[in-house]
Amino acid sequence: MGKKNGISPTREENYPQWYQEAVKASDMAEKSPVRGCMVIKPWGYALWENMVKILDDMFKECGVKNAYFPLFIPVSFLEKEAKHVEGFATECAVVTHHRLEKKEDGSLTPAGKLQEPLIVRPTSEIIIGESFSRWIKSYRDLPVLINQWANVVRWEMRTRIFLRTAEFLWQEGHTAHSSKKEALEMTFKILDIYQKFASEYLAMPVIKGRKTEAEKFPGAQETLCIEAMMSDKKALQAGTSHFLGQNFAKASDIKYQAINGGEEFVWTTSWGVSTRLIGGVIMTHGDDDGVIIPPKVAPSQLVLMPILKNNADDNRVLEYTDNVAAALRKKDYCGRKIAVETDKRDIGGARGWEWIKKGIPLRVEIGPRDIEKNSVFAARRDKKHSEKETINTERFVNNITDTLDNIQKNMFQKAADFRNRNTTIIEDKKDFYQYFTPKNKKEPEIHGGFALSGWCGNPECEKAVKDNLKVTIRCIPLDGENKKGKCIHCGNPADKQVVFAKAY
Amino acid sequence: MGKKNGISPTREENYPQWYQEAVKASDMAEKSPVRGCMVIKPWGYALWENMVKILDDMFKECGVKNAYFPLFIPVSFLEKEAKHVEGFATECAVVTHHRLEKKEDGSLTPAGKLQEPLIVRPTSEIIIGESFSRWIKSYRDLPVLINQWANVVRWEMRTRIFLRTAEFLWQEGHTAHSSKKEALEMTFKILDIYQKFASEYLAMPVIKGRKTEAEKFPGAQETLCIEAMMSDKKALQAGTSHFLGQNFAKASDIKYQAINGGEEFVWTTSWGVSTRLIGGVIMTHGDDDGVIIPPKVAPSQLVLMPILKNNADDNRVLEYTDNVAAALRKKDYCGRKIAVETDKRDIGGARGWEWIKKGIPLRVEIGPRDIEKNSVFAARRDKKHSEKETINTERFVNNITDTLDNIQKNMFQKAADFRNRNTTIIEDKKDFYQYFTPKNKKEPEIHGGFALSGWCGNPECEKAVKDNLKVTIRCIPLDGENKKGKCIHCGNPADKQVVFAKAY
Repeated sequence: MGKKNGISPTREENYPQWYQEAVKASDMAEKSPVRGCMVIKPWGYALWENMVKILDDMFKECGVKNAYFPLFIPVSFLEKEAKHVEGFATECAVVTHHRLEKKEDGSLTPAGKLQEPLIVRPTSEIIIGESFSRWIKSYRDLPVLINQWANVVRWEMRTRIFLRTAEFLWQEGHTAHSSKKEALEMTFKILDIYQKFASEYLAMPVIKGRKTEAEKFPGAQETLCIEAMMSDKKALQAGTSHFLGQNFAKASDIKYQAINGGEEFVWTTSWGVSTRLIGGVIMTHGDDDGVIIPPKVAPSQLVLMPILKNNADDNRVLEYTDNVAAALRKKDYCGRKIAVETDKRDIGGARGWEWIKKGIPLRVEIGPRDIEKNSVFAARRDKKHSEKETINTERFVNNITDTLDNIQKNMFQKAADFRNRNTTIIEDKKDFYQYFTPKNKKEPEIHGGFALSGWCGNPECEKAVKDNLKVTIRCIPLDGENKKGKCIHCGNPADKQVVFAKAY
Repeated sequence: MGKKNGISPTREENYPQWYQEAVKASDMAEKSPVRGCMVIKPWGYALWENMVKILDDMFKECGVKNAYFPLFIPVSFLEKEAKHVEGFATECAVVTHHRLEKKEDGSLTPAGKLQEPLIVRPTSEIIIGESFSRWIKSYRDLPVLINQWANVVRWEMRTRIFLRTAEFLWQEGHTAHSSKKEALEMTFKILDIYQKFASEYLAMPVIKGRKTEAEKFPGAQETLCIEAMMSDKKALQAGTSHFLGQNFAKASDIKYQAINGGEEFVWTTSWGVSTRLIGGVIMTHGDDDGVIIPPKVAPSQLVLMPILKNNADDNRVLEYTDNVAAALRKKDYCGRKIAVETDKRDIGGARGWEWIKKGIPLRVEIGPRDIEKNSVFAARRDKKHSEKETINTERFVNNITDTLDNIQKNMFQKAADFRNRNTTIIEDKKDFYQYFTPKNKKEPEIHGGFALSGWCGNPECEKAVKDNLKVTIRCIPLDGENKKGKCIHCGNPADKQVVFAKAY
């Protein structure tokens, strides 16, 4: 193959540009002509469908049930929770009219003004809270455990496919409980699910932690999160689980008759992950040839590419390929049958490159000489694209789930090694500033990675670091909550060690 | 049981009111405080999820792939297809601003006016067409077979849960082909899928047919549909498949390089079914006790209700119930495991009535005396609620799929018999008017049902019938396209027999 890399530029040359090219070359999604909205193409959507299926089963396992609530929220509803409205009013799509009218010049103009404007949901605490206030009467009705798969809209000014788009797809869980303890337990249980999903299925190691006051969800009492490191050493918030206390219960008047007869407010939680995770997969695993998708969530685990020569061998090769495909499709993998693509196009080396760039875990070539040896010529996407192996066909088919598991584990290990290599405990302020300062001006994004440093808890220190370095506290890791030290900014005693990083 | 019926009023007393009460009592959905938008509650959403799963598999079997396109459509895009804009501009949600601002009096008001208003998609031909115009370059790219599961919004003035709501959930398929023939074949193939889905899974017999010019989709060249009869003898359009000719290809400039080198417009189709089908299920099968859900799509196939007496027997009964549940949950049914509810609440007869009203196919009581006989006490929802049967437990478990199949078939047969009983060939105009005229003024909706009558093809005749009787041509059945006769309105020769009915 003449080309050096599937994608140009490389990650080192220009990471943001590399990301765009990787998305494009994978055929997962594209920009749409509608400002800030993306089109999720079949290959990207199939990945999302797999993610949905796995998460959905995990939620249902906990007794969570799916439901669906209105897309629109009346403005007066939004006003119910003061911090919530501050957080979302500045970037929402507002519906003001309910029809279009033809003007004299033939153009269409909004007509039928609504008495009260509606916003397109940026999140649904308030509108679901309204239902909860009617559903919940007594302690017998609790807990209520609901999830919604839906589209939401946040009018972001700077958008990037999957990572930050005006419209995105997500799940939002909303639960109501009779006690603070139970609601907190739910918040942590979901965090564990998110961690398990990210690490076991997306092969994405994550740190579980709490958000600081400045970074938490508008209206939440506590925001838990999972934070991942992308391959440019920046952090990506990959999922959040909020303990809302009684804030939203009071805002939406969600009360119940307690077992002892009194009337009490419920305790609520909300939690979500979104199509942003796809961006996370791309930036965790992708290399200079493009996207690499973990086998457990890949739309297809492998592609078979018969090598056709326009001669008498072709039929034999095609038949052999179909037999291998049929044998593979009978195998179970990750709760489903293995999904196999067969690509019979005669387009030369472009065919292999296309699948490399799509990130399919395994590529398999089958030619006349392979058939004679009863073997296939296989290449793993997690290895160099030139590393191919001739394997006995029967053995290849019989070992397929092991091979896929191996790829999955290798991807996780690589990502974990990378993160660990780029995570450092820093106690000295000068070291800290150096760590987050680019080595040269041409590559402004090159920095150290995650810094584990002390923080005194003062929002002023947090803000100073952010203003000076564009570095934020990604989270207070659950296992770093009681680590003593000194504050990286002010030098005062610190009773927690936090993760500082640049973030998406 | 003291109550005569689960629902009041009965269908005969007041059908629209019965429908509302049946929906409410089933706990499937409710009205929301957002005008025209519904909340789909867990029991209703689980039914929808099953429908989605089955249809999705059927589409994928045909090579259709899922994708996701923007929620918003710029107004200038809508203008591209003249009939399309006429059809949808009068009832759409218009987004005009992208944030809210606090006024001096503290209220929130729209701010950040958009240069171009956006409408919330009522359907996505135009926005998907824009993508197609970029995706399709050559005959090698065709056919493109895409489906989207999404929410859409049509600002209906009179709404009714599931049947006609401002926001609803649906699937919309969009395909592009290189020839008229292939596009037409696709339109018919999807119609067959819809028929199969309605009859085999929803137990809903449907008539396949073509829409008249007056009733077809705005912008379509041909609209095919499936029409079902509800238990008030009115028609429900349950799914549509449109052959769009080259109208939308021209509107969105979707051209391809043909095999012979020339540039040609593609031929497109679009097709959809929605949460409206849930309303169809309710009105096809529901009785005066409420909803009845066909086993193949039911959220759960059966409920086990241990009879607890607050005595020493209780543990034995609970254990026995759990064992029966475990044995049932191992059984395959309709591509999944059987879903079993166990309802251990001690709330007397209300418990059984709740499940009757939810329409669960089978209710099973297990008490101390049943255990002694090693039997269960089972009631089928498709029979009278007093008809219960003592069955040997082992036999019950072993025969469960047969029993469910039997319920499914019985439901279809009942619905088909009802429709056939209320479908009449009418050749005489006086008979026709009598057929559609209520017998008395108190019950204005009581009428004959479906009339199969000749139509000359003149839109004036169609309109006259509609104006006089509120009866429309539901479809020209595919098997009635060449039936000669005379037009039921003008008496002139007619070369087709059509279905006239009142409709939802």
